[in-house]
Amino acid sequence: MEDAVKRILAFRDERNWKQFHTPENLAKSIVIEAGELLENFQWDHRFDLEAVRQELADVVNYCILMADALDVDLIQAIQDKIDLNERKYPVEKSRNSSKKYTDL
Amino acid sequence: MEDAVKRILAFRDERNWKQFHTPENLAKSIVIEAGELLENFQWDHRFDLEAVRQELADVVNYCILMADALDVDLIQAIQDKIDLNERKYPVEKSRNSSKKYTDL
Amino acid sequence: MEDAVKRILAFRDERNWKQFHTPENLAKSIVIEAGELLENFQWDHRFDLEAVRQELADVVNYCILMADALDVDLIQAIQDKIDLNERKYPVEKSRNSSKKYTDL
Amino acid sequence: MEDAVKRILAFRDERNWKQFHTPENLAKSIVIEAGELLENFQWDHRFDLEAVRQELADVVNYCILMADALDVDLIQAIQDKIDLNERKYPVEKSRNSSKKYTDL
Repeated sequence: MEDAVKRILAFRDERNWKQFHTPENLAKSIVIEAGELLENFQWDHRFDLEAVRQELADVVNYCILMADALDVDLIQAIQDKIDLNERKYPVEKSRNSSKKYTDL
Repeated sequence: MEDAVKRILAFRDERNWKQFHTPENLAKSIVIEAGELLENFQWDHRFDLEAVRQELADVVNYCILMADALDVDLIQAIQDKIDLNERKYPVEKSRNSSKKYTDL
Repeated sequence: MEDAVKRILAFRDERNWKQFHTPENLAKSIVIEAGELLENFQWDHRFDLEAVRQELADVVNYCILMADALDVDLIQAIQDKIDLNERKYPVEKSRNSSKKYTDL
Repeated sequence: MEDAVKRILAFRDERNWKQFHTPENLAKSIVIEAGELLENFQWDHRFDLEAVRQELADVVNYCILMADALDVDLIQAIQDKIDLNERKYPVEKSRNSSKKYTDL
């Protein structure tokens, strides 16, 4: 992971793209790429794995760039969110249920 | 990262949620969370860092779950996408430009 | 408007596309097109009006198809939502403010 | 429709919200609302019709506001897009097919 993050940031810096990478622009970019990912599932459940794999990588790529722009430790943010989700979704209440925590 | 991934998958399995985690449902979930992330930037550039950090973690969380559902190595997918982007965006052409590769 | 709605539904029926137009698939389609609309504003505020106009039409087109799939009167739904918004955003509280009603 | 559009614009102007309604901010708003609409279909095909109806109205509401911000005639934009789609999706090629025009 560290290696991939380093390459992503080097890729950005070689092109001098940090000037475009405000948190707001990266938030837009993430949802745009997420829409392209979803396009693979627009009409049915069949999908082209390689196309999906590339779009998924695009989403995570921008998430890594956003964490950098925010100066946030992404792994720590994920860990903290799991802590929070464990409180919001206790095993006994949420097992086998797709309900939102507000409806549990 | 590996540790965070393990916790995310354990969190899912304790709740028996794999039944809901089709690639299609996870693609929907990623764009839904990406929309919530963008909501922090809906009207202006100011934002609440902690709220943004949590929404960003939600997006990556679902990306990790999707990689697992697809049986895809997410780090390798990212590395392969950087390889591709290096060909699509040569440094000399794309430096200081936010143009799409199709317009370079 | 009625004329445009009729043409959209005739376009669908000539191609026998109703089979693909479940509410879920149309909800996916709306967010996919909304992402394409946003792509015009990904990196800066300048935009190509004709491209934006076409993407905006795509979003509304799918909204009209979704209203039909749900058997919902879209104009009435809009009217009802304005009624609700008038209660959520009283003029005196929300004037000159971009805050969400939950924060007013 | 005209009546609903008038109410939407009056609602905006009574609150002096035009200052927030740049095309970019409205494009973000449309995708945010589209994500909320999709949330009703996140895990399965069942849905709450009234919730879906309200979110659909929110999307169209912002589309109407965006057309106004762009000074675009929304009905004409839809009509022009149908003209274009008729050329992209000839009946004989696209009948019973959910393929994108680039794959027909």
